[in-house]
Amino acid sequence: MADRTALEVYLDLLSQPCRAVHIFLNHNKIPHTVKLVALRKGEHKTPEFTRLNPMQKVPVMVDKGFVLTESDAILKYLATNYDVPEHWYPRQPEKRARVDEYTAWHHTNTRPHAAKVFIMEVLLARMTGEPPDPVRLRKALAQLSQTLDKLEDMFLKRQPFLCGDDITLADLLAVCELMQPLGGGRDILTERPKLVAWRSRVQSALKDSFDEAHGVLYRLRDKSRAKL
Amino acid sequence: MADRTALEVYLDLLSQPCRAVHIFLNHNKIPHTVKLVALRKGEHKTPEFTRLNPMQKVPVMVDKGFVLTESDAILKYLATNYDVPEHWYPRQPEKRARVDEYTAWHHTNTRPHAAKVFIMEVLLARMTGEPPDPVRLRKALAQLSQTLDKLEDMFLKRQPFLCGDDITLADLLAVCELMQPLGGGRDILTERPKLVAWRSRVQSALKDSFDEAHGVLYRLRDKSRAKL
Repeated sequence: MADRTALEVYLDLLSQPCRAVHIFLNHNKIPHTVKLVALRKGEHKTPEFTRLNPMQKVPVMVDKGFVLTESDAILKYLATNYDVPEHWYPRQPEKRARVDEYTAWHHTNTRPHAAKVFIMEVLLARMTGEPPDPVRLRKALAQLSQTLDKLEDMFLKRQPFLCGDDITLADLLAVCELMQPLGGGRDILTERPKLVAWRSRVQSALKDSFDEAHGVLYRLRDKSRAKL
Repeated sequence: MADRTALEVYLDLLSQPCRAVHIFLNHNKIPHTVKLVALRKGEHKTPEFTRLNPMQKVPVMVDKGFVLTESDAILKYLATNYDVPEHWYPRQPEKRARVDEYTAWHHTNTRPHAAKVFIMEVLLARMTGEPPDPVRLRKALAQLSQTLDKLEDMFLKRQPFLCGDDITLADLLAVCELMQPLGGGRDILTERPKLVAWRSRVQSALKDSFDEAHGVLYRLRDKSRAKL
């Protein structure tokens, strides 16, 4: 038996992929230790963290000494090597290929386009003390909108979850990205009933682990809204 | 229309991920049919192709009626479901995780940064009839240089291939991207002996399938150099 107490993850819960890893571990009751790495304090750039991950990024997983980066790879590793329901990352070849297809697409679509809106409305706005440039923000929102169209019209066209009838790693990675702009008070899914219904299904499937991981983001949202 | 009994791939050999799929199939002698989709003629935007892949992108694989997009997912599917040497996508969990880690990283590093140089020096230059803006080109080359540093200092630090002692899908995806700027006459690996040695190892491992897939790119390189 593997020594399960030896699983550690390095996370900042304001990072979307970190939340996906956090939810996966808690929802599936995989024993682990969380080491918080506060990006806003530059804790990912300390010599100690840089030795662990020279890329200076979170999340990082250390499983019995095996160091792994990239949320996509971490989640697939955990789903394969720990005792979790198969629906997360199905073994059946066509079903597994659908999850690999979405996750590959995710890196250059859902992730950058939702993140950009958050970066403009929250991170840059905080750094500069100025609201985002309206032309650039409109462009970022238009780009995000195209991604949301594809999520609705292609991935969710005929099925309740992104890759089929049950929740997979794809939904987990996607929902954490699509929640992010909420940190600036913006719910990007309003007026998108199909995606709102999908998000509800994902939240119901994840139960408490979803809100636990999003606590920090909810507090940021509340602060943003109080300012308006 | 798709043949429901056989393996078909829709490719344009000037597309980096398409070449990776082409090489994998030929090198591993997997029987298949290639359907050429000429991107420069807009053949990926015809109603027929759009029905096959609403994203209007290549490569697309159709295996006995199962339609799959995204080169990353296609290669993992082929490596898992066809009789190929295990080194391509190892079953051992830590080794497999290394390939998943690189491929996740690839989408937002090797791929966009090498592609950008090709787009500026070849595609945009051809469209506008003007050489690329030197400031923007310098910026793109600097960004690419950072990615090449990481490939050398992290992935290839202590091993001959990106994910260990043998060639994997990671090397295949990477080499096809790093070859692309050659289409504009630029070899981005000169003065990078570690990466040059790696490319030689990859080429030796792939034998004829490498040059066959790169024939169109070599012709483009020769035309670019003749113009100088």
